[in-house]
Formats: sequence, C-alpha cells, structure tokens
Amino acid sequence: MADVLIHNISLLATPQSADKARQSNSVLRIPRAAILIQDGCITDIGHEAEITARSPAGIPRYNANGYLATPGLVDCHTHPIFVGNRAAEFHQRNAGKTYLEIAAAGGGIQTSARKLRDASPEQLIQESLPRFHRSLTCGVTAIEGKSGYGLDWEGERKSLLALREIGRQIPQHLFRTFLIHALPSSYSDRRADFVGDVIENMIPAVAHDKLSESVDVFCETGAFTVDESRRFLTAAKNNGLSCMVHANQFGHSGGAFLAAEVGARSAHHLEYLSDEEIRALAAAGTVGVVLPASVFFLGNLPYPPARRMLELGMDVAIATDMNPGSAMTESLPFCMTAAAIYCKMTPEELLNSVTLNAAKVLDADSQIGSLETGKCGDVALWNVPDLESLSYHFGELRAAAVFIAGRVVWKDNDATARY
Amino acid sequence: MADVLIHNISLLATPQSADKARQSNSVLRIPRAAILIQDGCITDIGHEAEITARSPAGIPRYNANGYLATPGLVDCHTHPIFVGNRAAEFHQRNAGKTYLEIAAAGGGIQTSARKLRDASPEQLIQESLPRFHRSLTCGVTAIEGKSGYGLDWEGERKSLLALREIGRQIPQHLFRTFLIHALPSSYSDRRADFVGDVIENMIPAVAHDKLSESVDVFCETGAFTVDESRRFLTAAKNNGLSCMVHANQFGHSGGAFLAAEVGARSAHHLEYLSDEEIRALAAAGTVGVVLPASVFFLGNLPYPPARRMLELGMDVAIATDMNPGSAMTESLPFCMTAAAIYCKMTPEELLNSVTLNAAKVLDADSQIGSLETGKCGDVALWNVPDLESLSYHFGELRAAAVFIAGRVVWKDNDATARY
Repeated sequence: MADVLIHNISLLATPQSADKARQSNSVLRIPRAAILIQDGCITDIGHEAEITARSPAGIPRYNANGYLATPGLVDCHTHPIFVGNRAAEFHQRNAGKTYLEIAAAGGGIQTSARKLRDASPEQLIQESLPRFHRSLTCGVTAIEGKSGYGLDWEGERKSLLALREIGRQIPQHLFRTFLIHALPSSYSDRRADFVGDVIENMIPAVAHDKLSESVDVFCETGAFTVDESRRFLTAAKNNGLSCMVHANQFGHSGGAFLAAEVGARSAHHLEYLSDEEIRALAAAGTVGVVLPASVFFLGNLPYPPARRMLELGMDVAIATDMNPGSAMTESLPFCMTAAAIYCKMTPEELLNSVTLNAAKVLDADSQIGSLETGKCGDVALWNVPDLESLSYHFGELRAAAVFIAGRVVWKDNDATARY
Repeated sequence: MADVLIHNISLLATPQSADKARQSNSVLRIPRAAILIQDGCITDIGHEAEITARSPAGIPRYNANGYLATPGLVDCHTHPIFVGNRAAEFHQRNAGKTYLEIAAAGGGIQTSARKLRDASPEQLIQESLPRFHRSLTCGVTAIEGKSGYGLDWEGERKSLLALREIGRQIPQHLFRTFLIHALPSSYSDRRADFVGDVIENMIPAVAHDKLSESVDVFCETGAFTVDESRRFLTAAKNNGLSCMVHANQFGHSGGAFLAAEVGARSAHHLEYLSDEEIRALAAAGTVGVVLPASVFFLGNLPYPPARRMLELGMDVAIATDMNPGSAMTESLPFCMTAAAIYCKMTPEELLNSVTLNAAKVLDADSQIGSLETGKCGDVALWNVPDLESLSYHFGELRAAAVFIAGRVVWKDNDATARY
C-alpha cells in the first residue's frame, strides 16, 4: 500500500466501469496523463498538469518515461500448479503421434498427475512460482490459478494449498479455482464413486477450508459429461462457490448451454459455439473467456467466434490458459495479438478483454481492471507508442514497469527504447 | 575478442558442420559441458571436467548457472530499417479493410517509403537500432538486414548507409542486403525506366561502394515479374553480389524456379511450393528460408511445406522476417514454436534452421552457426531445461545471456528461474 504520483505518461488507456455497464468496449484515452495513488488506491487521474497541480506536496513521484499506461492486466484462466514440463509431448504431437501413443510414451495429464503426486509440497511451490513471476513481467497484476493436475483429493488439496502459499509470496492478486479436470487413474473403474466423492467430500472440503473461491469443470468428451458437470456445479453453488465451465473446446459438448443454465460467471474456450449457444450465454450474463494461445499451440482447432459473441451482446475476456499440455506461455500480450488476427478483435475490445472483462470473471471488477478513482493502484507501463502497438509488436514483449497497489513490483531494466 | 571458459552448462546442443555436409539435421548434445574461447574463437569444447582440466590457468570463467547452451542464433531475413510503425494498418486489415483502402488511409509500403524519405539519417538509425537490441535479447548473434523501404535510390542508399553505421554500433555480426522491394511511386508511370535504373546504376553503385553483400528481389504479383527479377539477379551476379529471392509467398509466382535457375543462395517465403519447385531448389543447392511469423501475422496464407522440403533434400532455415507490415517481431524463438506446430519440424531441425542453415544463407557457415573449435565464440545461454523447451515455452522467451566472440553482450538480470 503505497503513495505515488505516476507522471510523464504519454498516453493513458483504460476501460471505464460506466461504459461497461452500457455493454461498451470503449476505451478512455488521456494523452500526457498522470495517476495519483494514495494508500494503494487511485485517488486522482487525468491530464498531467491538472493532477500534478492538485497532488499533495511531497508525494513520491515516478517518472513513466513517456510510456503507455494501462490497467494492470488480469489473466483470468491459468493452470500454473504442475511439476516438470511436457515439451517432449508437444514435439511428439507435432510429429503426428496420437493421444494414446503420447500417453504410452509418458505424456498427457495422467503423467502430470503422477509427477505432482511424487513432488513434495515445497517442490511444487518452487516449480510453480516462476510462472507467476513471468506473468508479472508481461504486465499481469491479477491472476487466476486453477488446481487440476492432482486429480484425486490428495493431489488437488496439495495443489490448492500450494496456491494458497504462493498467494502469500507473490505481489499479484491471486484468485484460486478448484478445477475438476479428469478422472484420476485410481478411479478408472469407479467413475460413479469419483463423481460422488467430488460432490459429497471434495467440494464441501474446498469450501470449508476456504481453499478456493470458484469451481471449474472440464465438460468435454473424455472428461466429464453434461450431467456430471451439472451435479458438480450445483454442489459448488450449494457450498457458496462460484462457477466456471471449460466448455465447447473440441465440439458442441453441451458445456456452453450448461454454463448458461446454471448461471456460471464464465464459460471458457468456446472454440465451437453456435448462435443459439451464444444467445443463451448472453442472456445469462455469462462472460465468454477465449484462449487463443491454446488454439495456436494445438494447431488443429478453430479460433472461437469472438466477433459473433460481441455482436450478440456477450462480454468477452481473453486469458493465457497457461498450462504444460496445450499453452506453455505466460504472455497475455501474445494472446491479444492472436485474438487481433484470428478473432478480429479491435484494440479497444482487446484491452477490455484483458482488464475489466477479465476482472468480471473473477468478480473483482469493482476493485480492479480499470484506472479509475477508488480502484486499486494497479498499473502497467509499456514501452510502445500507442495502444494499437500493444497487440501489434509481439513475441517478446514485457511490461516496462508494473505497479500493484501503488508499489513498483517489476521493472524491466532493458526497456530503454520504443517497441 | 575475449578469452573465457564458459562452464556449468547443463546441456550443450549444436549442429556440426560435418553432419551438415551429409545433409543431416542432427544435433550433438553434451551434458555437463564447457566451452573454451580464446581470442574470440572456440578452441575447446566438451565435457566440463575435461575442458576445465586442460584450460589455461587463470582464464576468466563464466558460470552458466546450469543453463542450456546453443550457438548464438542467426536471423537470416529481416527488414529492420524503417521509421514509425504500421500498427493502425495491422488493425485495419484485421477489421477487413483491403490493401487499397489501407493505402488510402495512410498504410502500406509507400507510406513507409514516405516516412523514410522524410526522416533524417540520424532518426532512421536511432529508430532502427532498438530492433537489433531486442533481437540480441532473443539470442541472435548474427543478423541479416535488408534495405527496401527507400524504394528509390536516395531512400535505398540512405537505408544501406544506416545499416553500415548500425553495423559499427551493434555487437552482432551484421549482413546487409539490397532489397528491390517495390516500384517507387515516383516511377509509377515509368516502370521500364526504374528497372533499367536498378540494373545500370543502383546495383553497380551498391557493389562499388560496398553497401551490401547481397541483392534480394520481391518476385511476386504486384512487385516484380520473373523477367524483371531475372535481370536484377543477373546484374547482381555480374557485379559480384550474391542472390536471394522473395519467392512464392502469395502463389506460384515463378520466383522459386527463378531462384533455382540463377543459383540463388536462398529462396525466401515459399508458402506455395510444389514438389517440382522443391526438386529444382534442392538440385540447385538453394536454401529454403521459411518465415512463420509473417504467416501467423497475415493470417490468410498457408505455412510453407517445410516437411516436404526436408524430405526432398533441401536445407531449411527459419528467420523472423521482422518488418512493420507483416511480422512485427524480433523473436526467432517464437518462429521456432510456430514452425514446430505448423511446419512439423523437429527440435533438431529447428535448431539447425536458426543456426547453421541460416549461416549458410549468409555464406558464413564456416565461421558461425555451430559450436565447434575454430568457429567464432558466439553462444546463447537459455534458462530452459532441455532443447525441446526452446520452442515449447513461448511468447516472452529471452536468452539468459549472449556471448559474441567470447564477450558477454547481453545478460537477462531476470533469468532467475527455469522456464
């Protein structure tokens, strides 16, 4: 919780909550801006000359060096708690190996589960922490992290406890989700037992021990059916947890309709999505979370119909989906580039999707996601000349500096020249 | 030109010239390795214990911190000499605007040419320099840079002089190419005059003033015909310059056959390439340079058939194509990721493509492109656990450290944890 006057911002770009209430993806742009942060919150914002004139004498000043300022980015969908990597599997898939061949050769989610089970809690935390740091370097000040590579309760609890400990160690706001990802191999011939166990024991324990704020379920062929998913999400609601759904990644799985039916806060993936499904989600107020990095990385799926989602009135967020199997990246700016090209989203829609709309997914849009008085002093500075370049110049972009609650938590000592 | 013993390398991965002579894309892997560099050249390489034991007493030591070591990367196709950006055009294209509409709104190559003409030589150098620095942070120790946004002789000469001055200021090895890119607007109704001018005046002046080592031509519908391109390349050869061709990006332009016919060192792009064209290039010994970033960025072209090129005996290189219109990235590692997914190249082929094969494009494979005794001490260190991860973990990857001729020219102070 710090006091700071961030000045010499060449351009400030931010969504505004009032615009969002009108379902707009507009962006307020203020040239030659400054932001006053006191006790960690934004207390004044606008043209540099005015803000500077009415700032308290003696407040610490931070020279933004003429950079672009945006809200700190919000990554609302990541799978950061795992051990090892699946680089070999990535190359096997590119070489044409099938999922079964890859699993036989030591790849796939069950392998992540085995490695996680064999790791000590300390190892799990130490391997996972750098992913949060790299995310921070990409401008992310609030991040959702899912469990989901534990599969059974022992592994899921270990993952959620690792997330809790990581939340104490990182500067970012962390939002934790219990992900019901796949049937554990130990339950392979006791599917009904696992479903019952999740509903009767795991979800209540997650809620009781405050291990997460949300429950997510992978509703897809090969994972969980619509009926199983409905039972999981109903249990989540009954236990006071909010609902997300991994929906329609590989086909019209029914996950999107289910998300609308249960009033999930968000439906994620949505590579296959009909107008009827979009209308149902829009009517339910469910945010659509598109994950372009995994489409790029898997190489054989369509990009989600984000333009149609926007046309039919859905809020759209963009997230990294950072995970070892299908999106090994922490770069939300890369996802913006992919969404610009392949989802045809505008610079304004892109900024809304990685800030205020993503905050809405996390039920945190009253605190974060835009640069407005009263909100948290989370700011990303970018060494780019305009908002349009944030998604245009890609591949190795890092933030020049990142503030959380007014404190500088990351600074790129190499950000000396215009991108 | 420095002396250094780089030790504590967990894995060293490099192509070997002898393997390349056998048309192999194999990679030598040495665990727990060290590299001895004296007077800027590699004088010993191998297992750490052996190299350390036989290194001169008192030689400066560099602890590689357990990182992966590869040859410094070679980016053999970039367009780094330009002013301003074309971010607005990128978003207009994604919004469905046509090339003509974009040109009318102030985009396209003629706009780059106008901005370049209006810039002072100093401004052109200062705007271009950071691109070389960002390339360095991505592990690139040798880079080719093209002119091509000047179009007329005044602009092209200004670009080539900027490249010469930049070559004096940057640590990387710089290879300069005179690119005949498009008809200048001042010649719009005097096409034959321009072609004659290039052949009779520009190419001889480039050679006489030693402004570049190579000539490249954009042989494509809307740029230059096969016949015009043949005349340019013949003039290049007659003036002692080597030949490259921008070929077959938008269709079977004839550029690939022309490259084979004139014995060009390399043919670049090759999105559209038949078996017959591949066989012609393979027979001519022409290296195929694939540019995945521009395919990703343009969004409407097929990736080049690199697997087929490899099967039929072509050498394949990968480059960024870094340019403001169709590939605004300096990240060669990102291009490796895209080539892994969409060109189905293996980790070994990918490493060969950004090192030894790329050096071959620049006629520098006897000096750079592999870690072997006698070669230049150009080394990239990567905070990744294995070679497979170099193309797997993407979106913001930078090198942990970069050596050129044994001297540390870049170090990522943030490279503290495994990717």
